[in-house]
Amino acid sequence: MVTSRWTAATARTASPRRRGAVLERAILEAALEQLSTVGWNGLTMEGVAARAQTGKAAVYRRWPSKEDLVADALKAGLPSLTEAPDFGSVREDLLELCRRVREAMFSQPGFALRSVLYECDAAQAERFHAVILGGVVEPTLHLLREVIHRGMERGEVRPDAANAYVFDAIPAMMMYRSKVCASEWSDGDLEEMIDQLMVPLLRREAV
Amino acid sequence: MVTSRWTAATARTASPRRRGAVLERAILEAALEQLSTVGWNGLTMEGVAARAQTGKAAVYRRWPSKEDLVADALKAGLPSLTEAPDFGSVREDLLELCRRVREAMFSQPGFALRSVLYECDAAQAERFHAVILGGVVEPTLHLLREVIHRGMERGEVRPDAANAYVFDAIPAMMMYRSKVCASEWSDGDLEEMIDQLMVPLLRREAV
Repeated sequence: MVTSRWTAATARTASPRRRGAVLERAILEAALEQLSTVGWNGLTMEGVAARAQTGKAAVYRRWPSKEDLVADALKAGLPSLTEAPDFGSVREDLLELCRRVREAMFSQPGFALRSVLYECDAAQAERFHAVILGGVVEPTLHLLREVIHRGMERGEVRPDAANAYVFDAIPAMMMYRSKVCASEWSDGDLEEMIDQLMVPLLRREAV
Repeated sequence: MVTSRWTAATARTASPRRRGAVLERAILEAALEQLSTVGWNGLTMEGVAARAQTGKAAVYRRWPSKEDLVADALKAGLPSLTEAPDFGSVREDLLELCRRVREAMFSQPGFALRSVLYECDAAQAERFHAVILGGVVEPTLHLLREVIHRGMERGEVRPDAANAYVFDAIPAMMMYRSKVCASEWSDGDLEEMIDQLMVPLLRREAV
């Protein structure tokens, strides 16, 4: 009798009867986990169902395709970058912002997003472009803009620094070095980037 | 008789008996073509053999694996960036350098290289890291360094601008915008990048 009670309890723990939002979240989390381990090319609806301890039908009922599932998983998992740091110094604000971006980059949703960005062909990438732009690129640029504009108001930053190439400089460098140099962006790396790239780029010309 | 002579001639043209260097080059070109169309994941030794109009055995005899073949194809196909422009102005020199980088990026070997860079997992990427660093990244940085150092000697560029983040700024921005914004880097885009990013980053502080 002991054996059968144990078995029953284990079975209930391992695959509880989940419905609605709970099951949905488990499937979306499983999709992120698969993206960050086997990547876009390795992800299958079967693999996601197995990981979420549910059946393939439960996945297909909600998301007719791998593309639909991944778009929703990214939307649900991406961290929200909403509040700009405000330490009264553009250098400190940019450093703090970079630390947050690094945290997002090296989170599971961050790895998942990069696997989509890198592995998808042009037609598939089109499908996720809005998700990536709206969920990551735009919010990050919004915070960068805010920090740089506050630096201008304080007179720290030159008045003509507010342009798209300046705003893109940090995201571009962080993506490039993590991809090409396998940089993990230590605190020291972030400081070097701010001091060698952003400070000279933003400072007012001495007059 | 006319028919059979035509057939014989066509057959000889379509699959001549090639050996040594000629066949090798055809296989390497076929590998680059496959990489730039179906990507790293889509490339197969069979597909390369078919494209090069030879047998699978001819490919495997020279390259035991897909990794070996692709490493050699990249090495053979990558454009050589050797001579730094020298117009007497850092702005003009950087612009010309960017035009050359763009040409390389949007060439067949450029697309092939990016498919390897983006699609390979960490273990596979390791295999190509030396090829990409030695074949593209280092030569480009070498030319950037030369142009910027000449600008310093002329007094155009601030003396402390010679650092890794400054040298990486153009490659990082070109990679980021081509990937995230699908930029094709028109001449106007390149000029904007130089004028809004590099000129303020490099110029001497007015004293």
